[in-house]
Amino acid sequence: MAQQADITAMRRAVELAARGLGATSPNPVVGCVITDASGHPVGEGWHQRAGGPHAEVHALREAGVLARGGTAYVTLEPCNHTGRTGPCAQALIEAGVSRVVYAVGDPNPQATGGADTLRAAGVEVGQGLLEDEAQAVNIAWLTSVRHGRPFVRWKYAATLDGRIAAADGTSRWISSAESRADVHRLRAEADAVVVGSGTARADDPHLAVRGIEEAVQPLRVVVDTEATAVKPGARVLDDAAPTLIAIAEDAETGLPDVVRLPRAGRGLSVPALLDALHERGVRSVLLEGGPTLAGAFVAAGAVDQVVGYLAPVLLGAGPQALADAGITTITEALRLDVTETVRIGTDIRITATPKER
Amino acid sequence: MAQQADITAMRRAVELAARGLGATSPNPVVGCVITDASGHPVGEGWHQRAGGPHAEVHALREAGVLARGGTAYVTLEPCNHTGRTGPCAQALIEAGVSRVVYAVGDPNPQATGGADTLRAAGVEVGQGLLEDEAQAVNIAWLTSVRHGRPFVRWKYAATLDGRIAAADGTSRWISSAESRADVHRLRAEADAVVVGSGTARADDPHLAVRGIEEAVQPLRVVVDTEATAVKPGARVLDDAAPTLIAIAEDAETGLPDVVRLPRAGRGLSVPALLDALHERGVRSVLLEGGPTLAGAFVAAGAVDQVVGYLAPVLLGAGPQALADAGITTITEALRLDVTETVRIGTDIRITATPKER
Repeated sequence: MAQQADITAMRRAVELAARGLGATSPNPVVGCVITDASGHPVGEGWHQRAGGPHAEVHALREAGVLARGGTAYVTLEPCNHTGRTGPCAQALIEAGVSRVVYAVGDPNPQATGGADTLRAAGVEVGQGLLEDEAQAVNIAWLTSVRHGRPFVRWKYAATLDGRIAAADGTSRWISSAESRADVHRLRAEADAVVVGSGTARADDPHLAVRGIEEAVQPLRVVVDTEATAVKPGARVLDDAAPTLIAIAEDAETGLPDVVRLPRAGRGLSVPALLDALHERGVRSVLLEGGPTLAGAFVAAGAVDQVVGYLAPVLLGAGPQALADAGITTITEALRLDVTETVRIGTDIRITATPKER
Repeated sequence: MAQQADITAMRRAVELAARGLGATSPNPVVGCVITDASGHPVGEGWHQRAGGPHAEVHALREAGVLARGGTAYVTLEPCNHTGRTGPCAQALIEAGVSRVVYAVGDPNPQATGGADTLRAAGVEVGQGLLEDEAQAVNIAWLTSVRHGRPFVRWKYAATLDGRIAAADGTSRWISSAESRADVHRLRAEADAVVVGSGTARADDPHLAVRGIEEAVQPLRVVVDTEATAVKPGARVLDDAAPTLIAIAEDAETGLPDVVRLPRAGRGLSVPALLDALHERGVRSVLLEGGPTLAGAFVAAGAVDQVVGYLAPVLLGAGPQALADAGITTITEALRLDVTETVRIGTDIRITATPKER
C-alpha cells in the first residue's frame, strides 16, 4: 500500500506534468516532485518545452543539496539516454536521491532502461503509483508512441438532438460561453487543430488559441481537398499561428504551406494526413469538424477520444455532429466508454474513448 | 430557519408521496408524516389511488391518539373540501394535531382553504418547507392544473450524435439494459404512454410496464392519423393495459377504442389529443416518440420535460431523435435548463425543462 504522502507527492507531479500539455511534443509531458530525507517537498519541476530541461532536472535544481537521501516522484520513468539533455537517471544518482517512484514505464525504446540504471546504482525504485492518472495526462503522447501517429481528440458541440446548426446554417450560439472558452484550452493542449473544407467555407474560422496566457499556438490545419475553400485573406492564414493546408495531389492552388496527399473516398486519406502531421512533430490533434471530416476519421479508426459539448437546446432540423462514418447497421456502431461527464456553464461535457476492438 | 427534524420529516413525506406516482390521477400525489408531541414519528401515509383515503387519513390512522399535540408534515396543503373522502383539514383538527407544516399550497380552487380552516381552529400552520422538492414530485399534477392539459414528458434514447437507429433502421440495442428498465419506471409513473404511427409500424411496441411490482398500467396511446399503422393483432391491442388509438376524423378503421381528432399539418392536432386525454383523467403523458410526433409536440409548445438517455455510441447516419419541430433558425431553438445528469448503466440520462417563454 502506498503511503498518503507518496500519493500526495505523485498527484502534485501529475498536476505539474499537465502544465506542459501542448508545448512538449514530440516529447511527453512529465512532472517531478522531490522530497528530502524526512519527506518534506523541496523541489518541483515539469518538462516545459521540447529541447528544454526535463522535469527531474528542474526539480533537482530547486532541491539542491536537500535532494540527498530524499525521494523523487516522477510521472514517467526517468530517461536513460542522452538526447538534447543528459540522462535523468544519472542526474538523480549524482544528486544522491535514495528512492525514485515513477508512475508509468517509458514505452519509448530509445529512452527506457532508466529504472535499471537507478537500481544498479543502489537506488530504491518503485513503479505504478497513480499510474492511471499519469497515463491520462500523457494519453496523447502514449497513444502516439503506441500507434505511430498523432493522438486524435474529436471535439464537437451539439444540441441534445445532435444538431450542430439550425436548418438555415445558423449556429451562434448553440453552446455556452464557458464551453467555447473550454475549447480554447483543448486547442492550447493540442499540437494541431484540424477542420475540413465545409467548416472553412461556412465559418472562416481562426482556430488560434485565445484567452490562455503563455499558450503555445497549435498548427492550424485545413483539409481542403480541392483547394477551393481557403482563399487568400482567410482568417486562418494570418500570422497568429502556423497554418498548413492539406490538398489533393492533383489539386491546383496558389497558396503557400500546402501538403499534397492522396485522395480517399470523397476526401483525403486520413492515415496519410496523420503521417504528414507526425512527420512535422505533431503528437496530438484536436479535430474540430465538421461532420464529414469527423466521419472520415471515425471510418478510418482514427478517433482516440471524443469530447462532446451538449447544449440543452432542441432544433429538430439542421446538420448533425457526425456524418458518413461508413456505419450502416447497429452492430457496426462505434461504441465508447464514458470517462467523464461534467457541467460546463449550462452545457454538459461528455468525454469518451472508443472501446478496444 | 427550519429545524433539522422538520426537514427530515418533510423529506420522508416527499418520498412517501412519490410512491403514488402513476396511480392517483386526476389527484396529486401526497405524502404525510405525523410526529407526536415530543417530535417522534408516529404515523406515515401517502395517497395511494384516486378515490382512496388521502395521505393525512392514512397517517392519522397509524398515529391514533399519539397525534394529539403533535405535528403533521404534508407535501401539499391539506384539502378543505368534501370529495369522495372527507376534508383533511377537519380530520387533522379532530385528531388534536397542534401544528401542520405543508410544502406546497393547493392551486386547485375547489380544494384550497385548508390552511385557513386549520388556523381558525387554533392550529399553528407553516408553509414552504422543501417546497422545491415537493413541487418536483408533483410536477405532473401541478402542470396539469396550471395548463389545463396533461403534463408531457418526452423520453428518447439516442447515440451521442443524436441517432435513434442506424441507417438500416436497426436499433437493438443503442441504450443499456439499465436505461431500458428505467423507462419502465417512467411508464409506471405516467397515466398514458404515447407513440406515433412510425414507431407503431416499425417496432410493433407493447408499451406496457414490465418488471415493476404493483405498477398501475398506463393507457397506451397510438397516434395513427390515417388508421393504417395499428393492425388487428398488434401487441398494443392485447389486454395487458388499456389502449386508445387516435385517428383523423375522416380516417376509416375497424378498430375499437379509437378517438377521432382534427388533423393538423401532416398529423393530428396535439392540443386536441391532449384535451381528449385530459377528459379521460390523464394528467401525465410519457411521449416515447418517434421523431415526427415529438417534433409536433415541440412545435405545439407541449413538451414540459425532456428525459434523454444518451448512449456512448456513434453512428454517423440514421434517423434523429427529433424532427420537424418547426424550427428553422437558431433564434427559434427550444432552450432548456438541465435539472439532472446521472449515469444509468453505461448511458447518461439528462433531464431538462424548457425555459419559460
